[in-house]
Amino acid sequence: MQLSKAAEYAVRGAIVLADRYGQGPVPLVEICRVRGLSKSFAYMTKIFRILARRGVVRAIRGKNGGYTLARPPAKTTLLEVIEAIEGRLALNLCQHTPPQCHEPNCPVRPVWTQLQEQVRSVLGSKTLAQLTHRPRRARR
Amino acid sequence: MQLSKAAEYAVRGAIVLADRYGQGPVPLVEICRVRGLSKSFAYMTKIFRILARRGVVRAIRGKNGGYTLARPPAKTTLLEVIEAIEGRLALNLCQHTPPQCHEPNCPVRPVWTQLQEQVRSVLGSKTLAQLTHRPRRARR
Repeated sequence: MQLSKAAEYAVRGAIVLADRYGQGPVPLVEICRVRGLSKSFAYMTKIFRILARRGVVRAIRGKNGGYTLARPPAKTTLLEVIEAIEGRLALNLCQHTPPQCHEPNCPVRPVWTQLQEQVRSVLGSKTLAQLTHRPRRARR
Repeated sequence: MQLSKAAEYAVRGAIVLADRYGQGPVPLVEICRVRGLSKSFAYMTKIFRILARRGVVRAIRGKNGGYTLARPPAKTTLLEVIEAIEGRLALNLCQHTPPQCHEPNCPVRPVWTQLQEQVRSVLGSKTLAQLTHRPRRARR
């Protein structure tokens, strides 16, 4: 039960964009360099295409192009970044939409439902603005 | 971020043993039949060997052999069953022991630490006795 590597890398990249928000687009090669992911450039390219398609980041083409957050860091949550990559979080089969386990009266399902709500609530309450490396005054 | 199939099957099997606790060993073929996992008998054999090695269940050999819980359902938690299979739960790389991500001052790690504690706390608070299909009076 662990966050996927793709979602983990998406979070790392999104935090770079939150750190640099308002300073123009950041090239993906620079995002990778900052996070020590230069060897994973091709993988990050795929991840950022998904983030752009899901409306979490915006791709800006051209010589000075790169990526920016689609919305300000204070309006983008950790949950949005993670679910853009993984789809709706599901801690167990019964938590998928629709559920992938249909056992009637399952005594364990309420436990997973409770956990699922807690995890989504915590991740949904954390904005990228709260997670940047920038001094608090510089956050937007 | 989803429970492994092995841990999910371990939980299903353990609940059968909780349902039948005090009624003697339950053959694995019967555990599989009850949970609709007869096609996964070979897989369940491996899972139950791990559960036995980790002290969650006890294997009883012989003609009337099978498995029982090593401790009463009220003394066996969902967390113990899951961690017997998956090892200590780790929602992200930084939550492994030792951590598999060493970024200094990571702003996201406290979020994962908080979530990790919540998930382990909920799973550790649920005993198999609370999750059996038996009437409450019959639980031990």
